Formats: sequence, structure tokens, C-alpha cells
Amino acid sequence: MNVSYLSTSDTICAISSAPGMGAIALVRMSGDKAIEIADHIFKPATGKNPIHQVPPHTAQFGRVYNGEELLDEVVVTAFRKPHSYTGQDLVEISCHGSVYIQQKLLELLISNGARLAQPGEFTFRAFTAGKMDLSQAEAVADLVASNSEASHQMALKQMRGGFSSRISELRARLVHFASMIELELDFSEEDVEFADRKELKRLLQAITLEIDALKSSFTLGNVMKQGIPVAIAGSPNVGKSTLLNALLNEEKALVSEIPGTTRDAIEDTISINGINFRFIDTAGLRDTEDTVEIMGIGRTYEKLNQAWIVLYVFDITEVTEEEIDEALADIRQQLDDPHKTIVPVANKTDLLEELPHGFTRLVDLNTIFISAKRNESLNLIAERLVEAVQVNKLTDQAIVYNLRHFEALEKASASVEAISDGFSRNIPSDLIATDIRQALYYLGTITGEVTNEEILGNIFSRFCIGK
Amino acid sequence: MNVSYLSTSDTICAISSAPGMGAIALVRMSGDKAIEIADHIFKPATGKNPIHQVPPHTAQFGRVYNGEELLDEVVVTAFRKPHSYTGQDLVEISCHGSVYIQQKLLELLISNGARLAQPGEFTFRAFTAGKMDLSQAEAVADLVASNSEASHQMALKQMRGGFSSRISELRARLVHFASMIELELDFSEEDVEFADRKELKRLLQAITLEIDALKSSFTLGNVMKQGIPVAIAGSPNVGKSTLLNALLNEEKALVSEIPGTTRDAIEDTISINGINFRFIDTAGLRDTEDTVEIMGIGRTYEKLNQAWIVLYVFDITEVTEEEIDEALADIRQQLDDPHKTIVPVANKTDLLEELPHGFTRLVDLNTIFISAKRNESLNLIAERLVEAVQVNKLTDQAIVYNLRHFEALEKASASVEAISDGFSRNIPSDLIATDIRQALYYLGTITGEVTNEEILGNIFSRFCIGK
Repeated sequence: MNVSYLSTSDTICAISSAPGMGAIALVRMSGDKAIEIADHIFKPATGKNPIHQVPPHTAQFGRVYNGEELLDEVVVTAFRKPHSYTGQDLVEISCHGSVYIQQKLLELLISNGARLAQPGEFTFRAFTAGKMDLSQAEAVADLVASNSEASHQMALKQMRGGFSSRISELRARLVHFASMIELELDFSEEDVEFADRKELKRLLQAITLEIDALKSSFTLGNVMKQGIPVAIAGSPNVGKSTLLNALLNEEKALVSEIPGTTRDAIEDTISINGINFRFIDTAGLRDTEDTVEIMGIGRTYEKLNQAWIVLYVFDITEVTEEEIDEALADIRQQLDDPHKTIVPVANKTDLLEELPHGFTRLVDLNTIFISAKRNESLNLIAERLVEAVQVNKLTDQAIVYNLRHFEALEKASASVEAISDGFSRNIPSDLIATDIRQALYYLGTITGEVTNEEILGNIFSRFCIGK
Repeated sequence: MNVSYLSTSDTICAISSAPGMGAIALVRMSGDKAIEIADHIFKPATGKNPIHQVPPHTAQFGRVYNGEELLDEVVVTAFRKPHSYTGQDLVEISCHGSVYIQQKLLELLISNGARLAQPGEFTFRAFTAGKMDLSQAEAVADLVASNSEASHQMALKQMRGGFSSRISELRARLVHFASMIELELDFSEEDVEFADRKELKRLLQAITLEIDALKSSFTLGNVMKQGIPVAIAGSPNVGKSTLLNALLNEEKALVSEIPGTTRDAIEDTISINGINFRFIDTAGLRDTEDTVEIMGIGRTYEKLNQAWIVLYVFDITEVTEEEIDEALADIRQQLDDPHKTIVPVANKTDLLEELPHGFTRLVDLNTIFISAKRNESLNLIAERLVEAVQVNKLTDQAIVYNLRHFEALEKASASVEAISDGFSRNIPSDLIATDIRQALYYLGTITGEVTNEEILGNIFSRFCIGK
């Protein structure tokens, strides 16, 4: 990380709207000199005041000049410290969105004493000013990068506080105990106890409970962020690829309805009711003696084990109910988790003379009848996937989706265990104090009560510039 | 053009910042219901007022909800009619720049009664509200698309009025005459003259002068916009391509200094001191009897004729001064314009044992000595190109760079000529009245005093959405 990051006394500027040409671009500037620099390049429209005389939060129309030369007609809004995103004086300039104007405006601000902001530096200053804690700052980057309702909601909840206030509170109580124990060490020859051991044990239990709940939410949070893995399995030539393409195309048609919005292409991931599903293609499953093919099937089972949901596709015109029943039992036997959701999908209904009926066993198995080729009944698959995840239950609880938080929780957890262990073995207070300091450190790294340059560098380098 | 364009009574919305993910995105909404819709989805921060109670032009922090569900934390600024870009109530929402949020926010506005704006529809409403005339509206699109100082300055000048006020004034005077002549037609049996023929002639002369000046500025304006054509000519293997690549790379290195800004790649065009130069590659020139090669050389001369400036490159280690003198004379003889700027460029100075001296004839010819291979003295070429264009003189005058304006001027010019012609041949007033109406029509199409759906459709369809 560039060391200048940590200095918040200079004035930074950046293009905050998306890169490239747009109708309007937004350039932001934060720091002590922001208003002075803005006044130097900005001439307000006739009868209007310079920026430093305009009431805060008020948008004002005028012109930006580079010396004598007119650069653009703009709208400037100044936010005064501490009532701004960064907690500093913050100036926002809306200019015409040509790449030329954006670049020249930025050059102009720089030549007047601002410097180009590093990625995430506006949010870093917000963190430094105490506007948000570290996990909230991280959530800002997650919010900007989120591409589904689930990842969006997780980031938004985290940005608004999420579990960090709870962690902070537990940590504050632990800090109190730490100081009591340190005090005992000062009076160690007198053998007094300032810290109530019972109370401390209760606190350690509460922390353990909280951490365990958060740790177990991580798998879910991470999967929600990356997309819930769904494997499409079945014998060769039953239409697995056709189904996958049909599902992907269906969604593409959906998201391209509104012009002017683009969407990052995520290979083989579709969003249904705000949940991302990530499809895993598998080689065809069939009985074989061929060594190479057996290895291939081994890999297929690996993928089925990784998946949360398995769509087992078969050709309705080619198999008997008994064969399907057997095949499903075979698969379930090979899987690590015997309760994994396996959805039987009867494909190629278009080849049937009449609508399927009499498949009593398949109906019992909750089979979905579709024609991937004709895009028929794909919505039934979508509904079944959502049903299998039961997202409504999940989004109410605090979810850890950030690997850094998860790792800090694991380490804090180990330290808390060491403290409890120390008590039960009656080890000296100074050793317990060390473990408490460790636990405090790891909990503190989540919320940013403890930071170091490496942590900050890792966090803010993944921001986009201008945020 | 979609007919709903012309209706300005409904409320439109669009993403106005560049498409894709950014730190912040800007969504705009214009129309009678803009403030009502904003209030419906926006909950101000504690202690703050709803949008309709906030003073105009004041940015306010709060949250956007879709029913019960929080979508984002945003800053909303409302501009009240007529003090807004569109002349209507206009609401700007700065949200976090994820593609997901942008799309959901747009959907939310639409489901609350706004509709998606067509390209340029905000500016169309500004035009309809009399905030700008048509040529100014067109300049807005040009400004957003401009990629060099010259095209930027031309668009900016045009957006701020340019020549359109002058056209409007001349047209208003012509309108007055038209009504006098129409009046004469009503009293035609009484043979009276309301319109002062001498005064009309003077007016026609003034219009002709103005139109001619503007018409002649078009070639320049268009070239400034597209890039001034520069041909690189010379015998084979003298380093023409090396020079072109060196010039192009030099600029690429320059423009990539500031991260966060991107630049549309324009093949073989470089910007020097804000002027775009468009390089034209030519096949090698040499004496030949070969028919195919003679044809190739014919094409090379065509390109040299199209160019405003010719860089004649030769290998300083391979030719005598006399040969260069002769070659330059040869080229000049073949060109349509004997005064075209031809710059002799002596390449491969790196192969010389010592710095070139004694080339008295080459020095007389103002030759530039370079090493394209080593990127040496390329700045001299840049300086010479700028010198040859003398841009300072050019940017002070009104420049027509828009083909539509040029064509309208040509047609107006023909009509004005027909009027003058009619007077000198004493043709009946009703025929003259027809010609005046024609001239009025064409002048009016430039500023938008005359419009029709086709003109408007052509103009606004090239805007980006959100402007």
C-alpha cells in the first residue's frame, strides 16, 4: 500500500462515476482545500455566490475555467465537514460526461493542489473519521460489486452495521476484563482478584456462541455471494447442455429488457428471485468398464458432491420408471451427503405423442417434466431451485460472507478457547492476559478497532477508484 | 422516432452516468411527477424533510425503499421547474454504482409511474422548454462525444450559442419582410408596396455574407472534428511505418498517465495541443514501369491530395540533397494544390556517424532530422504539424462542423439566391414570397424554429440515454 493512503490531510480527487463516456460524469474532491480549489476553477452563474459562500449541500450551476479557457458548464455541490461522506469538506462536480472533459477536469484539480485518490480512499477517510467501522467500509466495496439480490442484501446489511456492533460490544466487555486482569498483575504479590472469574466465563461463553453462529453462517454467505452450485447430471445425450443453454438464454432475455444498463457476464450463472445459481456441467453418467471413463465418472461425482442441488436429467422417451428409480438410488449412494437435494428432470416431452401420464413413480419422486428444446416448463425448474434454498429464512440472520472476517473469527475463537482452557487449568493470570489480548486483537481487526497497514492495504486495494 | 418523444407531459427517468459499475451512479428523473415519485421511494435521514419540502437544489441524504425492502443509501437533489436543465421538475439520485442497484432503482422509478427516457430526451425537453435552441441541443451531444481540445471547444462554443443567435436574428428580419410581402399579396389589385425593396436587398446581402462565411468554415470544422489529414509519404523502407508507430506510441504513453480515465481508441489518430491529426498511410513512392505499381502510386497521390499536410520521409544515409530536391519538386507537381504544406523528414539519423551538418539545401527546405527508431526529435514533427494548422486563429471564429447545419445553409443559400434573382428579374411577389418561405424554413431548421419529427428524430437518436 502506498503510504500516502494513511495521510488524510491532503486533498484527493477522482472520477466517481463509471469509467468511459456517459451523459454526465461525477468528479469528487475531499480534503481541507477542496472548497478553495473548487472556488479557484469555478465561476458561478450570474448573481450566484462562490462555493465557500453557498450553503452546504446546495447544488449550484456555473462554469469551470482552466485559466481563461472555458472547460465546461457544471453543477457543483459542496458538503461541509463533518457532514459529508468522508467527514471532510467534500465537493462534487457534475460535468458533461465526455472522456475528454473528465480527464481535463481531473488534471485541473490536480494542478490546483489536489492529488489523485487511491482506490477506496474516500471510504478510507470515512473510516478514519469514524463515519463507519472497517467491516462497514468493506461492505461499501461489496455493495458496489454486488450483482444479485442476495449479495446486494448481504452487503447492504453489513454496510448498515451488520454483526459488527455486536462484536464491538462483546469486545468492549472483554477489554474491561483485560484491564482488571492487568491490574491484578500489578498487585500480583498481594494475591487479589479484581476480575470476577464467573462473570468472565459467562462472557467467554457469550462470545463463543456469537462467534460460532457467525462462523457457521460463512459457508452460506460465501455460497450466496458466489452463486449456489447446481450440478446438471445424467446419461450422455439426454439434453443436459440444451437445458443449461435454455436456462442461461432465458435469463439473458430477461436482463436485457432495460437499455442503458449492462450486466457483467457471469459464465453459467443465473439469478432467480435474486439468488445466484452457478451451474456445474458434468460429463455423462453411465455404466462402463473403460478405465478412462471411470475416472471421468469419478470427477463427475466430485462435482455432484460440491453441488448443493443436483438436477438429474433423463430422456423420458428412452427409459423406464424402474431405471430412473435405480439410477437415483445409485447416485445417492455415491454422494457424501445422503440428504442432498436431487431433482429428477424428465426431458424431451416434445417427443412424446401425448402429455406424460401414468408415470406414477416419477410423480412420487417429484419429477419435473420439460422440453429444453422448446423452452417448455423451465420455470418449474427455477421454482424448484428457489424452493430448495429457502432464501427467506436465510436473509434475516447476520451472515458472514467475507473471508477475512471468517479467518479473524476462527483465530478469535481459538484464543477464546485458550482463555477458557487456561481458567479450567488454573494457569497464571499473565498467560491468560496474553490470550485475552490475542482475542481482542482478532475481534478488533474485524471492526477496525485494531488495524495495521497490511490489513488496510488488502482491504482498500480492492475498491474502485472514486469510492 | 417514437412518437412519445414529443410528449413532454409524462415523467422520464434514465441512468445518466456512464454504463457499467462505478463508485457512484447518477439516475435522473424529469417531469410533473418526478418529485412525487421520489418522495414515494425515498425516506429522508432522521430529522430531515421529504423531497417536496426540501429547498430546491439541496442535496439530501436518505434511503431508497422498494416497499419494505431497503435498496440503497442515496443522495437526492431536486431541481424545481423552471430552474432545471429540462425546465421541468428534475430529480437527481446519486446511488452506489453497482449495476444491480442502478437497474433496480430504474425499475423502481418505472413501477412508480416514470417511463424510461429515450436517447437525448432530457435535452429534447430542455429544447422544448426554450432552454436552448436546436443547434445548442445538438452541441450537447457533440460535447459529450468530443475527444480533443478542438472538437471540445467547437462543441462548447456552439452549446453556448455559437452562430445560432446571428442566424435567428437574420431570420427574424426576413420574417418581417415575408409578412410585408404577404400583405402586398392581399392587396395585390391595388398595386401597393409595403416591403422596402432596397432594405430587403441589403438584408439578403447580409444573409448571403453570413451564410457564405459559415459555409466556408464547414470544411475546417469538419476536419477539426474528424482529425486533420496528414499523409506520410516516401520511398519504400525509409521508416514510414516506424515513424507512424513511434508517433502513436508517444501519445498512448501520454494519455495513460491518469488511471480511471479511458479513451476511445482512434486508429492512427493522435492529438497534439488539442488538435486531432489523422494519419494516412501511403504505399512507397518510387520510379517504376510496372503497371500494377503505377496504379498503386496513383492511389498514393490521391491520398496526398486528400491530406492537408504531407510528411515526406527519406533515409538520410541513402540519398543526396539533389535527389530530395528533385523528389519534392516531383510530388508538388503531381498535387492539385501547389501550396500544400510538405514537410521533409530526414530519418535514420541514428545511422549517421556524427550529427548531420552541411546539408545546406535540406536546411533551406526546413527539413526535420529524426530517428524514428530511437524516438528522437519526434516533438519537432509535432510542433511543425501544429504550426501548419495555426489553430489559434481558427478557434476564435464561429465554425460549422455539423453536416446537417451545412446542408441547411446550402439550401438556404440557394433560396436567398432565388429571391435576389427574382427581384432583378421583377418576377411576381407571390413567387418571391415562396422563395422567402423556403429560405426561412431552412434557416429555421438550424435553430429549431422550424422542426419536424424527422429532423428531431435524426438529431436526438444519436444522443446517449440519460442526456
